[in-house]
Amino acid sequence: MTVGGWSAPETDVMANVGEALDGDRAVLATVVAVEGSAYRRPGAKMVIGDGDGVGAVTAGCLEDEIVALAREVLDCGQPRVERFDLTAGDDVWGLGVGCNGVIDVLLEPLAESYRPVVEAYQSGKDTVVLTVVDGDGTPVERGDRTVVFPAESGASGPCLQDTDWPDELLTALEGPTNRLLSADASDTVSVRYEGDDIDIFVDCVTAPPELVVFGSGRDVAPVARSASEVGFRVTVVTFRGGAATADRFPAADRVVSTSPADLRDVVSFDAETYAVLMTHNFVDDRIALTEVLDAPTEYVGLLGPRKRFEELRSALAEDGHHLTDDELDRVYTPVGLDLGGGTPLHVAQSIVAEVTAVHHDRSPNHLTERAGPIHSRSPVGVEPSEFE
Amino acid sequence: MTVGGWSAPETDVMANVGEALDGDRAVLATVVAVEGSAYRRPGAKMVIGDGDGVGAVTAGCLEDEIVALAREVLDCGQPRVERFDLTAGDDVWGLGVGCNGVIDVLLEPLAESYRPVVEAYQSGKDTVVLTVVDGDGTPVERGDRTVVFPAESGASGPCLQDTDWPDELLTALEGPTNRLLSADASDTVSVRYEGDDIDIFVDCVTAPPELVVFGSGRDVAPVARSASEVGFRVTVVTFRGGAATADRFPAADRVVSTSPADLRDVVSFDAETYAVLMTHNFVDDRIALTEVLDAPTEYVGLLGPRKRFEELRSALAEDGHHLTDDELDRVYTPVGLDLGGGTPLHVAQSIVAEVTAVHHDRSPNHLTERAGPIHSRSPVGVEPSEFE
Repeated sequence: MTVGGWSAPETDVMANVGEALDGDRAVLATVVAVEGSAYRRPGAKMVIGDGDGVGAVTAGCLEDEIVALAREVLDCGQPRVERFDLTAGDDVWGLGVGCNGVIDVLLEPLAESYRPVVEAYQSGKDTVVLTVVDGDGTPVERGDRTVVFPAESGASGPCLQDTDWPDELLTALEGPTNRLLSADASDTVSVRYEGDDIDIFVDCVTAPPELVVFGSGRDVAPVARSASEVGFRVTVVTFRGGAATADRFPAADRVVSTSPADLRDVVSFDAETYAVLMTHNFVDDRIALTEVLDAPTEYVGLLGPRKRFEELRSALAEDGHHLTDDELDRVYTPVGLDLGGGTPLHVAQSIVAEVTAVHHDRSPNHLTERAGPIHSRSPVGVEPSEFE
Repeated sequence: MTVGGWSAPETDVMANVGEALDGDRAVLATVVAVEGSAYRRPGAKMVIGDGDGVGAVTAGCLEDEIVALAREVLDCGQPRVERFDLTAGDDVWGLGVGCNGVIDVLLEPLAESYRPVVEAYQSGKDTVVLTVVDGDGTPVERGDRTVVFPAESGASGPCLQDTDWPDELLTALEGPTNRLLSADASDTVSVRYEGDDIDIFVDCVTAPPELVVFGSGRDVAPVARSASEVGFRVTVVTFRGGAATADRFPAADRVVSTSPADLRDVVSFDAETYAVLMTHNFVDDRIALTEVLDAPTEYVGLLGPRKRFEELRSALAEDGHHLTDDELDRVYTPVGLDLGGGTPLHVAQSIVAEVTAVHHDRSPNHLTERAGPIHSRSPVGVEPSEFE
């Protein structure tokens, strides 16, 4: 499901990149560096074809300018880097970015070199995309690209797509790439090559997380939709064939009717798979619970009161399956964050907020608390320079 | 914006009730009692006209049956109460309610007696709706209704709409009504009247909370939409006339261009008003911050890094406005819950989840934590009877 151009989830942006690769010419715009603060981090993408573009590189204020620049890039066929300095001017933040930052955006004609990234993303694999931002006077040029498949590297370091980049350059990139990979971040790094600096944007493109929702009731639809909006790929699974049709869950990427015995053949579970059990059926929830606990799934949300889980647990124990502490730690029941409200969309909001926080390894506190209580900070009336 | 029939926010359900009052015949179905657990609490409503109905009384499994019953109620013109016992049967929870409860649903031909409830709701006023569920052998009949306006009662107790109910009955209802009011809950209460029991459903209908979003950028739209879906009435305010047009924010109930001086004339703020400042403009955020802190608004979310707030605070201090601890406690910045993710819809998710939690007085923890760690509970292998 596509949710507006500017606010499209990353899954939709990538889908649009894939379509553009198969279709008409398009421009890929990527935030490659941020100094100070900005609405989006390096790696934020926008793809511009004939229309207004899909994706966001700022809070919405520079996108029109990016679209105009993309037309120029299409005309001349050359990648360029545009710097937006939002720290200047009389009207501070008057440009509307709500930040005091400098943003570099790489605009490039979308080329075949990006296809392996999209294909990996869509088949659930992470990549690291190395793109030359500035290579003046060196053997590489702005827009040159190579793609690393870290999951396939084993102990021997990153596995590179065939590339004609000099070995010394690739060796110099290994350290920064691995550091960014462990931080799940993207940034531009400068490496020294034969007396020249080469700026390379190292983009850690993470495959979308998977949400598997067990159930076929009406309450599944808003969960699928909300999760899809925040970038999950959603599979709806039911053990009751007739009830699960794709048109009931238009936001789901897949709707699967299967027998419990065949579940593992049609749905794969890994550590980036999140499961929500909302079958509203004791027998089905019990089967699903057994299956997902047996998989490496870190998150198993179970709809319903705690008492119901205790009954499920007891039923499993009677079958000889005594849940371990590790298994219990993976079960979130009642599912969801404690946000209050009892309508179907409140329930979906609570569930999807929880899955989002778990996926990002966050404790779902108020951000204002993470930053510390405001009034324990500097007393009022101090000079602005103290806030640097 | 209407979001599907079953998952419609309460605001949409009420809007549909209002339209039905002005249009064709319809049936109002209300959960009036729950024993055990259920997906929805007493007070959950569904309005059924010609179509499939709007609103949810269960997780979606009984709605088809409710629609069929509603046709019968329209035909005979008499209210009825239907009991759904989901505790029975071989296939426990086979009916799909995901609970082990008994649910009573009142179905009544929608009548003029409900109009004051809708009018109060839509003008931001709470009501308590007293509806006879069972009055056999007494002066009142099933479906008879009177409406209380608690906010207008002052010290002298609830203010009733004109009613011909006996004074003794109204007096007997006062205690239970006030107890439910303070708990913000709805339930059926039995009162003794001249030797007979009368069952009255006491429904605390709370006016929707108001979210005032300051800003006119593209990032306002997903916040307005998400908030609207969880029942907020949304007003978008901008001090920059041209940018704010209603078609940019289709989910907003109102889009207001105003000068700061006129703000209070066009937007009213009370304790149930929540403000989010995302103008991306220092001057505009400063004006908005001053205005909302001067109002009784409990929640002021401010988009942007903490450093930016410190600069705003410093600017206010230079104007002689030194923020008090009370004012600082009301400012949430960076706005939102710490859920992670950086796309526009992640930002909206984080903000709206925070406002929802604050509105419901919740700490946004995992519900599974609120219930206590699972594995500190009963050891495995105990008898099912221990889970009663």
